[in-house]
Amino acid sequence: MNRENLMAAVKEQMPERRWQHTLGVMETSVMLAERFGGDAVKADIAAILHDYCKYWPIEEQAKIIRENGLPQDLLAFDKELWHSHAGAFIAKTQFGIDDEEILDAIRYHTSGRERMTQLDKIVCLADYMEPGRDFPGVDFIRELAKSSLEKALIAGFDSTISFLLSKGKRIYPLTILTRNDLIEEVQKQ
Amino acid sequence: MNRENLMAAVKEQMPERRWQHTLGVMETSVMLAERFGGDAVKADIAAILHDYCKYWPIEEQAKIIRENGLPQDLLAFDKELWHSHAGAFIAKTQFGIDDEEILDAIRYHTSGRERMTQLDKIVCLADYMEPGRDFPGVDFIRELAKSSLEKALIAGFDSTISFLLSKGKRIYPLTILTRNDLIEEVQKQ
Repeated sequence: MNRENLMAAVKEQMPERRWQHTLGVMETSVMLAERFGGDAVKADIAAILHDYCKYWPIEEQAKIIRENGLPQDLLAFDKELWHSHAGAFIAKTQFGIDDEEILDAIRYHTSGRERMTQLDKIVCLADYMEPGRDFPGVDFIRELAKSSLEKALIAGFDSTISFLLSKGKRIYPLTILTRNDLIEEVQKQ
Repeated sequence: MNRENLMAAVKEQMPERRWQHTLGVMETSVMLAERFGGDAVKADIAAILHDYCKYWPIEEQAKIIRENGLPQDLLAFDKELWHSHAGAFIAKTQFGIDDEEILDAIRYHTSGRERMTQLDKIVCLADYMEPGRDFPGVDFIRELAKSSLEKALIAGFDSTISFLLSKGKRIYPLTILTRNDLIEEVQKQ
């Protein structure tokens, strides 16, 4: 399937507002890849597909995780985490994407993971800071992203963790491991 | 060693200001034990000893952890966490405390742990809210502690996590597991 068809297939899965967000993540992922010497083609493909399952019925997303050996602990945490893993599964099985770097960037774009690849960081950060995003601290993230993927991502995860604290919601442990790992990475730079 | 001698031994290990904090934790631990039907005698002993190693040279604390099979991952995290484990070790080996509930309450009074016992909760919460404590949110914690150990403790951990976020410091994963576990406990109540 060529890029245009892939975009058309994604557009059908979500409301127009979310499609505009996807376009923003695509644009920002490519911009970040160019800024930091990453692979802009892979970043573009991962960005196109990253929210493929976001508006699927939540039970569909859970079913994909349950029936295909994806991390079961996700099901005990925030539903926001599910579409990323379901999306990577669909990217592979339905669209034949077999580049593990692209699949990982889709898979971990919400939670992060320890030892994130550059592509993981680009897509995850683009998701936080694409032009349509508007939340407290987003301009600070954009400012940091001018010089450091890692510092900007830490600020992104900080905003997520603060939000979960304020809502009294549980925090997915991998997100803490990710943030800890990024802080160590910055300290070593 | 009787209680008076134990108190005298603890007082010698710390500056006067920290001894006043210890007295506050003792008073608050006993008050919380009485309020929630806990063991006030054990709470008192754990509170007396909880900060025994707090002002020891940091290398001494590290040595105890390194040489006695205590959790080695502590050494990669905030030094604030070390005195609790070192303190439990000293309580056992130097003062002959062999009540595991008391030792655990000392050991986990900073990080918390999953499935905290009532005594763990009492000492950890008393450490957050004793009368001498003054930080943003402490009055909210005291208010919650009128009716729920768990809700007050969640607010305590929230304040610690927010502080670490604001300082750009790594977060000890067990503290997140503890907070997640307490939220589940509250939801089941």
